[in-house]
Amino acid sequence: MTNTLYLPELREMLAEGDHQGLGEFCTALHPARTADYMEGLSAEESWQVLSHASPQERIEIFQYLTEEKQLEIFAAADEHEMARLLVDLPADDRVDIVQQLTPDRAEALLALVPLAERRDIQRLRAYAEGTAGAVMTSDFARVDEKLTVNEALESVRRQVAELETIYYLYVVDDDDHLRGLVTLRQLVVSRPDTLVSDLMERDIVSVDVDADQQEAAREMARYDILAIPVVDRAHHILGIITHDDVIDVVVEEATEDAHLLGGVDPLRDGYLETSFLTMSWKRGVWLLFLFTAGMFTVMTLSSYQGDMKTPELEWVMVFVPLVISSGGNSGSQSATLIITALSLGHVSLSDWWRVVRRELTMGLFLGGGLAFFGFIAALIIAHPPHLMHALILPVTLVMVVTAGTLLGSILPLVFRSLGLDPALMSTPFVAGIIDIVGILIYVNVAILVTHYF
Amino acid sequence: MTNTLYLPELREMLAEGDHQGLGEFCTALHPARTADYMEGLSAEESWQVLSHASPQERIEIFQYLTEEKQLEIFAAADEHEMARLLVDLPADDRVDIVQQLTPDRAEALLALVPLAERRDIQRLRAYAEGTAGAVMTSDFARVDEKLTVNEALESVRRQVAELETIYYLYVVDDDDHLRGLVTLRQLVVSRPDTLVSDLMERDIVSVDVDADQQEAAREMARYDILAIPVVDRAHHILGIITHDDVIDVVVEEATEDAHLLGGVDPLRDGYLETSFLTMSWKRGVWLLFLFTAGMFTVMTLSSYQGDMKTPELEWVMVFVPLVISSGGNSGSQSATLIITALSLGHVSLSDWWRVVRRELTMGLFLGGGLAFFGFIAALIIAHPPHLMHALILPVTLVMVVTAGTLLGSILPLVFRSLGLDPALMSTPFVAGIIDIVGILIYVNVAILVTHYF
Repeated sequence: MTNTLYLPELREMLAEGDHQGLGEFCTALHPARTADYMEGLSAEESWQVLSHASPQERIEIFQYLTEEKQLEIFAAADEHEMARLLVDLPADDRVDIVQQLTPDRAEALLALVPLAERRDIQRLRAYAEGTAGAVMTSDFARVDEKLTVNEALESVRRQVAELETIYYLYVVDDDDHLRGLVTLRQLVVSRPDTLVSDLMERDIVSVDVDADQQEAAREMARYDILAIPVVDRAHHILGIITHDDVIDVVVEEATEDAHLLGGVDPLRDGYLETSFLTMSWKRGVWLLFLFTAGMFTVMTLSSYQGDMKTPELEWVMVFVPLVISSGGNSGSQSATLIITALSLGHVSLSDWWRVVRRELTMGLFLGGGLAFFGFIAALIIAHPPHLMHALILPVTLVMVVTAGTLLGSILPLVFRSLGLDPALMSTPFVAGIIDIVGILIYVNVAILVTHYF
Repeated sequence: MTNTLYLPELREMLAEGDHQGLGEFCTALHPARTADYMEGLSAEESWQVLSHASPQERIEIFQYLTEEKQLEIFAAADEHEMARLLVDLPADDRVDIVQQLTPDRAEALLALVPLAERRDIQRLRAYAEGTAGAVMTSDFARVDEKLTVNEALESVRRQVAELETIYYLYVVDDDDHLRGLVTLRQLVVSRPDTLVSDLMERDIVSVDVDADQQEAAREMARYDILAIPVVDRAHHILGIITHDDVIDVVVEEATEDAHLLGGVDPLRDGYLETSFLTMSWKRGVWLLFLFTAGMFTVMTLSSYQGDMKTPELEWVMVFVPLVISSGGNSGSQSATLIITALSLGHVSLSDWWRVVRRELTMGLFLGGGLAFFGFIAALIIAHPPHLMHALILPVTLVMVVTAGTLLGSILPLVFRSLGLDPALMSTPFVAGIIDIVGILIYVNVAILVTHYF
C-alpha cells in the first residue's frame, strides 16, 4: 500500500539539501497526502523532510504518518526535538505515543516536557485502555455562561490555537462542573448581545470516564453529535472524545469482534505489520485449544466404535462430517447474529427469553428443512438395509440443528451476563461444542432406531 | 430495549388532551431522549404526541424515532401532514423513507410536495444503494470565493435554516464546480475583511458519486474530516456526506461483513425486528447450500469405505472430525484475517504474494505444532498396530492445516480480484471446502502409509 511516486525525488532533494524543494513538498498538498508519499522513507529520512516544514505543517503531517513510523521517529530522533513535538501534538495522540515507547525513552522525553504538559500526559496515561478516559483529549473549548455571544466568540479566538475542535463549547462553573453546551453554529447565527446562558443546552449527553469506549461511540452515533464530554462521578468535565476518534473506536471494536468470531486473538496492528511470532501465538493458542476440545469427538466416536461395527450401521459413519457441519453452521449463524446484535445494542440481556424462543423455533424449522433433503440423501447414497433406518439422518438433523441454534444463542448471552465479551464465544468454539453434541445425538439415534427396527 | 418509564403518563395526557403537558414533554429533554421515551407508543399515538410540539421540535424528535416507527407514521398518518414533514426532513433521510414506502403511498405523498423538493427527492432516489450518492445529502453550505469573511458569515446566516452542517462551506463556481473549502473555524478566527479565496483550501478530498459508501467512510476516517463532498466525473459538487452518516456506514458495513463471515445473508433490520420468514430465508439458503456442499464429504468417505474397512485402518475413522475441524479452524482464521485486512485497507490485492507466502509458512508452522500433539494422541488413543501408522495423523495435520491457511487466504483474494465482496468467502464456506480437502488428504495418507508399513 506504499505510494512510491515521489520517493526518488524526495531522496534526491534530501541528498542535495534542497531546502526550498522540500519546503514546497510539505506545503503543496493536503498533509494526509504528503504523509502518504513519505511512507516509503525511513524514520530518519521522514524526520529530515519534516524539518524543512513550518512547525504548524510539521505537526499536521506528522499526525497522518502511520503509528509505526511515528513511534520509530520518537524512539530514534533527537530528545529535545521530540520533547517539543510531544508538546505540540494533540493531548490524546501524545499519550498514545508515550504509552508505547520504552519506559526509559518515555522518562527521558517527559523530563524535557514543561510541567503543565507533563502533568496532563501523566493524568491521561492513568486511564485503562479501552475506556472513555483513554481516548479522550483534554483540549476542549470552555466558555462562561455569563458571557454574551460576542464575548464568547472572542474567547474562542483566544483559545483556538490549542484546540482540536471549536464547534462545541462547554459551559463549566468555577469547579469545572459541566453545566451546558453551546455550538459555534448557535453563536454564529445568534445576535451578538445574547447571553450564552440563554442559548446553551442543559440536558447534554456525556459519558463516564471509566465507561467502555464503545459506549461513548454508541452515544455519539445515537445523538449524531460531533464530540461527547467525558465526566467523572461528580460530573466534572475531564475531556472530550471527538468524531474522528469515534470512527477509529468503531472500526477497532468491529475488527476485534470479527477476529474473535473467526477464532483469532485480536491483532493490535495491521495484518502485514504483525510479526510472524505474534501472529502464530495469537492463532496457535486458539487452534490448540480447539484441537484439544476436538479430542472429545475422537473419544466419543472411539467409545461407540464397537456398537457401530454392525454391517447395518456401517453407512452411518460416512455421514458424520455432514451431520456435525450442519450443526456447526446453524450454531455459527446464531452466534454471529446474537453477538453482533448485542454489540450494536439491538438485543440486551433482558431479551433472552425472546431470543431463545425464537432460536428454538428457527432451529426446528431449519432442521426440518434439512431433514427432508437428508432423508432423500440417506435413501439414495446409503441404501440402508431397512427403510426405517433412513430416518436416522433426518431425525438427527432436526435435533442437531436445533442444538446448534440454541447453543449458538445461549452461550454468548451467558458470557455477556458473566461480564465477559460475548465475542469470545467464537464461531469455531461454538462449532467445536456442537461437534461433540452432534456426534452424541447421531450415534444414539442410530443405535436406538436400529434396535427397534 | 423499550423505555416504558413515561408511557402511562403519556397515555393519560393523550386521553385527557393535555396540550400543555405534552408540549412540555416535547421540550424538556434532548430530542433523542424524548424519542426513546416514546418507543412504546403506537405510530398513531406517537404522531399525536408530536402534534403538540413546535414544528422545529417535531422534526428533531421525529428523526430520532426508529426507522420502523417513522415508516409506520408515514404509511398511516394524514397525507398533507406527511407531505409537509417530508419537506422539513433532511434531504438524505427523506429519500430513505420514500424508498421504503409502498409505490402508491410514495406517489401520493410526492404529489403533495413542492416541485423543488420533489425534484431533489427524485434525483437522490436514482442512486444505487450502497453508493456515496445514496447516503449524501443535497443540503450543504455554498460560499462565493469573492466574498470577504464577514460577507461569508452573513451568507451562512441566511442559509442556516436549511443546512445540516455549517461547519464546512464549499466554494463553487457558477457551474457548481467544486473549487475549494473554508471551515467555519477559519471564518471565525480570521479578520473580517479577509477574502474567502485567500483562506480556502484547494486540495480537497472528495468522493465520486458512484463510489462505494465504504470508500467515502475510509476517506473521512483517513483525513479526520467532518464531511466529504460528493462529485461527478466533471467535478461538479452534488452533495455531501456528514460525520453522523459515516458512523452509520461503518457500523452497517462491519455488521454486514460479520454476518457474511458467520454464514448469514446480511439482515437489513435489527435481530428482533426481522421477521421469522425473512430470517429463516436468509439463514436457510446458506445452510442448504453448505449442506449440499457437505454431501461431497459423504460421497468421498463413502467411496473410500471399502479401502478403510481393514482392521488396521478402523481407528482412522474416529479421527475424521478432529482432522477436518483443525483444517476448518485454521482456514477460518486466515479467511477472517484477510477479509478484515482487505476491508480496513491494510492489505490490497497487490500484496497477494506476501500474504500467500506468509500463510504458507504459518500453516506449516501451526500444522507442525498440532502434528506433535496429534502424534501423541494417535499413540495413546488408537494404539495403532504398527508404530509407523501413528504417523498418519501428524502428516495429515500438517497438510490439512496448511491447506486451510492457503485456501482461507487465497479465496477472499480471488473474490476481491473478481470484483466480488471477499466476505462472501464466509468462514463456514471455507470450512466446508476444507472438510472435503481434509478427508481426501487424510484417507490417501492413511492408504499410502499402511501400504508401505
